[in-house]
Amino acid sequence: MRPDVATLSSELLQGKYRALAQSISMVERDDPAASQLLAETYPATGRARILGITGSPGAGKSTLVAAMTRFYRKAGKRVGIIAVDPTSPFTGGAILGDRIRMQDLYTDRGVFIRSMATRGFLGGLARATNDVVDLLDAAGFDIVIVETVGVGQDEVEVIRTVQSNVVVLVPGMGDDIQAIKAGIMEIADVFAINKADRPGADRTATEVMMMMSLVDEHAEWIPPIVKTVASQAKGMAELDEALSKHNDYLVSSGEMQRRSLERVRIRVETHLKERFMEKLVGGTFSAEEYNRILDDVLDKKTNPHGAAAAMLGRVGF
Amino acid sequence: MRPDVATLSSELLQGKYRALAQSISMVERDDPAASQLLAETYPATGRARILGITGSPGAGKSTLVAAMTRFYRKAGKRVGIIAVDPTSPFTGGAILGDRIRMQDLYTDRGVFIRSMATRGFLGGLARATNDVVDLLDAAGFDIVIVETVGVGQDEVEVIRTVQSNVVVLVPGMGDDIQAIKAGIMEIADVFAINKADRPGADRTATEVMMMMSLVDEHAEWIPPIVKTVASQAKGMAELDEALSKHNDYLVSSGEMQRRSLERVRIRVETHLKERFMEKLVGGTFSAEEYNRILDDVLDKKTNPHGAAAAMLGRVGF
Repeated sequence: MRPDVATLSSELLQGKYRALAQSISMVERDDPAASQLLAETYPATGRARILGITGSPGAGKSTLVAAMTRFYRKAGKRVGIIAVDPTSPFTGGAILGDRIRMQDLYTDRGVFIRSMATRGFLGGLARATNDVVDLLDAAGFDIVIVETVGVGQDEVEVIRTVQSNVVVLVPGMGDDIQAIKAGIMEIADVFAINKADRPGADRTATEVMMMMSLVDEHAEWIPPIVKTVASQAKGMAELDEALSKHNDYLVSSGEMQRRSLERVRIRVETHLKERFMEKLVGGTFSAEEYNRILDDVLDKKTNPHGAAAAMLGRVGF
Repeated sequence: MRPDVATLSSELLQGKYRALAQSISMVERDDPAASQLLAETYPATGRARILGITGSPGAGKSTLVAAMTRFYRKAGKRVGIIAVDPTSPFTGGAILGDRIRMQDLYTDRGVFIRSMATRGFLGGLARATNDVVDLLDAAGFDIVIVETVGVGQDEVEVIRTVQSNVVVLVPGMGDDIQAIKAGIMEIADVFAINKADRPGADRTATEVMMMMSLVDEHAEWIPPIVKTVASQAKGMAELDEALSKHNDYLVSSGEMQRRSLERVRIRVETHLKERFMEKLVGGTFSAEEYNRILDDVLDKKTNPHGAAAAMLGRVGF
């Protein structure tokens, strides 16, 4: 029998693993009862540290997430992992060997791993990911790590809702690193140069530093560069230290408050837009009517702006 | 004096360069008259081929775009370039040398280059990019190339609105290419292995082919792999041939119709969501009221779902 929402949320707040898994499934499929569940558990959120790990496929993000998780587990912390990257071993889609190397994490009840890589979440990936972060937070997980590849519809939206984002690079990017500049610098709070036992790690670090000095010399926070060899669990204490420093900076500068408010704003607006579209298409306009409007745009009888304006006019907007 | 919208749109439809530039600026700043302009020019759209070029920074995307543009110019075609990638030389943000190497394109009136890399477009990057594609199309440009890096808020949304998307790879990605699988395969209609004079180009091609055979053996369209050396204009005829074949496939399979309808759907929904938010925040709710609601969510007096539901309730949704 399926437990009622009150029971589920109370068990989740006690940190029960099964209640958490059930709750997450409810949220993922946008179950009508999910809103109530999220409302009841929301007051218990705000304690977890929400970290992001971003980087290209092949940079070793998942291995780094696994090494960080083991490091935090040794410190007695509970760790939630949300893999948004469809290429992540955590999604089960990629290389089997990687998944086997992470078996210890799958059998540890102090670790909760959830893949969000499936397409077509009702209400969008960013909505679902943020709801799952909240559930892990409410269930008492100390650290939530969100792994993203940075290619994907809502990925950067997701990155914008973490507290500290680690951008993972690998040595040997050569001159091309210059080109990274604008795209990556904006979202990096900490750089991890992973596979740092390969040749060129120092050069990559120097290049990142040079790029940073060009980008914004008056920045209050200069992203530290940490060398890691995740496959050998090297550099984890240094990475943790960099993340802790960033956390201190966030709090002392007021940036944490600003990011938290931004996270709230993104979440409320996501809900507003999605619920509005749900009520508009399928409610005010039937699916057939809506398809006819889209066909009219395609046939040049109207245009995208005009069609949208007419639809909004019908509901008094 | 600023021309009226009717004059502007009629000049744009005649392909006048200055009217096009003015129109694009209007659309970018979401000028109130932009809707009228887009409505008047929309019937003239649907003739251009809309191509996407996607790849990591350093893959040589911009050099490839420049080489393709020169190739199409020799064939007498007019080419519009929209650089969404903030690291692109076309945005003016990157390496000066690259920009100088593309000077011929900047002085050619059969080429229109526009950077959309600035942040904070009113109404979002995807909205603005699609509107600019339409204006170039209406102004008689035969080919519109949209260059994206694939990291960015609306980037994949943009990629989903092109007709044929070229994913640019470089040799020497080694074993890591396996990890690309899910993320890239979905958005690639054609692969360009650029810098193919470097060692490892054949191996990269083989790896991509192996990945494709794993991903979807029943696909109707198998993305061809083209080797290019964009800096020497090599491989352009082959790339054009691959793109033409893809275009034929799109038309004959009915996929073109499906993509066009999807593009219309994305555009109408983008407008609906944005206009709705504009009317809701700043209209129904003052900015102060809205900020108070966000503060209440931050202070746990309510939650993101509850706040959104309450706001929608106020407007009868």
